[in-house]
Amino acid sequence: MSSLESDVFRWLQSRGLWTQTRDSNPNVVVGPGDDAAVLARPTGDVVVSTDMLSDDVDFLLAEAKPELVGRKALGVNLSDLAAMAATPIGFTASVAVDKNWSKPAYGNLSCLNYLKRLCEGMLTLADEFNCPLIGGDTNCFSGPLTISITVFGVIPHNSQGRKKYVPWTRNAAQPGDAILLTGAVGGSIHGRQFTFTPRVNEALYLRQNYDVHAAMDISDGLSLDLFRMTTASNVGAALDLDSIPIHRDVKKTHDDKSPLEHALSDGEDFELILTASPKTAEKILCDETLRSLGAKIARIGTVVNQPGLWTADGKEIAPDGWLH
Amino acid sequence: MSSLESDVFRWLQSRGLWTQTRDSNPNVVVGPGDDAAVLARPTGDVVVSTDMLSDDVDFLLAEAKPELVGRKALGVNLSDLAAMAATPIGFTASVAVDKNWSKPAYGNLSCLNYLKRLCEGMLTLADEFNCPLIGGDTNCFSGPLTISITVFGVIPHNSQGRKKYVPWTRNAAQPGDAILLTGAVGGSIHGRQFTFTPRVNEALYLRQNYDVHAAMDISDGLSLDLFRMTTASNVGAALDLDSIPIHRDVKKTHDDKSPLEHALSDGEDFELILTASPKTAEKILCDETLRSLGAKIARIGTVVNQPGLWTADGKEIAPDGWLH
Repeated sequence: MSSLESDVFRWLQSRGLWTQTRDSNPNVVVGPGDDAAVLARPTGDVVVSTDMLSDDVDFLLAEAKPELVGRKALGVNLSDLAAMAATPIGFTASVAVDKNWSKPAYGNLSCLNYLKRLCEGMLTLADEFNCPLIGGDTNCFSGPLTISITVFGVIPHNSQGRKKYVPWTRNAAQPGDAILLTGAVGGSIHGRQFTFTPRVNEALYLRQNYDVHAAMDISDGLSLDLFRMTTASNVGAALDLDSIPIHRDVKKTHDDKSPLEHALSDGEDFELILTASPKTAEKILCDETLRSLGAKIARIGTVVNQPGLWTADGKEIAPDGWLH
Repeated sequence: MSSLESDVFRWLQSRGLWTQTRDSNPNVVVGPGDDAAVLARPTGDVVVSTDMLSDDVDFLLAEAKPELVGRKALGVNLSDLAAMAATPIGFTASVAVDKNWSKPAYGNLSCLNYLKRLCEGMLTLADEFNCPLIGGDTNCFSGPLTISITVFGVIPHNSQGRKKYVPWTRNAAQPGDAILLTGAVGGSIHGRQFTFTPRVNEALYLRQNYDVHAAMDISDGLSLDLFRMTTASNVGAALDLDSIPIHRDVKKTHDDKSPLEHALSDGEDFELILTASPKTAEKILCDETLRSLGAKIARIGTVVNQPGLWTADGKEIAPDGWLH
């Protein structure tokens, strides 16, 4: 443990958010400070997602507040858990910072203060979803600030140990399924790429109440990610382009693209694409409890046999999005 | 998924080591290629360890073979699992490479070929310990090659769901305990820092057959890590310096330090420090099955009430090691 890591560790301990015993958090048997963390065996499958973010790629250190960088780093991982219908139970975070971390290299902030604020943003979101930080690793190197997060979730089984829920996957869309979308898409670059709320609550409510066939979160763009989902399922999608909820942030971008094009391709929306039978979809669309969780859900199309993305009148749509 | 990530993913699929179904690996319900991986619920606690390695810090890209870099990146994490007495069940790996990855930036190798060889080293070690790669993330940035691994293990429960084993921790050393060490220490810089075998097999055998009190792996140096263990346990250690197995590699270093000083401080040995009652320790030292697993085990001292590290005749030893 380097001096920097000790400093961060002590600060986190003083912040009181790390839990060392099963008494304070039933999921954490051994928390930070040992060689590894131990999660109590939950009654269910363990779901793991990992994502690394770097300055100049996933955020601009010079422009984004450290709290928002931390929030995003965890948020993109929680969004992946939501896309699998998993309940978050904990995460680990590794960071690599410039080896000259003792000099104020991060704007006006010392590196330690930068990391504190980054953790603050991360942990505030973690609290919201009851997902404790259970371990991590701090490194100094000669590169841009880099954060690697691994998040864990569970798909609970029922008391007999038989499966109650199954993880949602992207390869289970069936011809005839309705295609649903949470929230509105496009223009995330104007701030929502940092402030989005991962659709964990919506996913867990849907898992409990409806038979969802396939699911995926949008990181690279609605059309590109939907194309990936339908390709994985060996099907295609007929989109009702008029029904796609376009986020008002799209208007803040002034370029040659139409609002619809932005909605289809901007990416970093971290909304969920879901498919379900038309009957189930109808019930989902009318579910007032679900609506009260935050995200409106819209039906944007239908799964079809013919691979590819199509308009309602049979024109092919080229998948477009942002390749990280 | 970037083009590079697709390339790596395809290569890994063609290599046949990733398993997509519960049929081919009972631990993996959903393997790579979806938003997150799903591990089957094992009957036991889930253990998680994470460690990030970078060029110029943990290895020298210009000098180390990519296979060895990959082996080390996983090995240090498996060593952490061994230190907790956890059975490895899977790992995720994130890598960040130079954004100009399409140019041959890694010696004579293209970046893709470098990553293939890196994965080869990683997966060969993974196979040895039946620990499948279950997910990951590839990133391009303007920094040195960086690898972040998170490894998962389990501490099994017995069939009634009651605890059979408990994770070893570093805070459970008791006054009067014998202090045991696997293998020999010092001089790892001459190659063993890459080629070491994590003491997983030894740990699992010990877990099954003996009551080990405290355990920790040596990453930063025997004296420094033993000091950390005794500090975490609110005890001290009286070392029998003559009994410390000094690795023959120490002789390859020519400097002012004595062989013993190297053994106490070199670090990256990835051997295990263990404590157990003197009676248990005696049985462990005579266990021929254990010896056949690879590592010789030696008794190097005794846990004492007085905090700190001490020689047999009561002189204090300053903890010394390598701070990453």
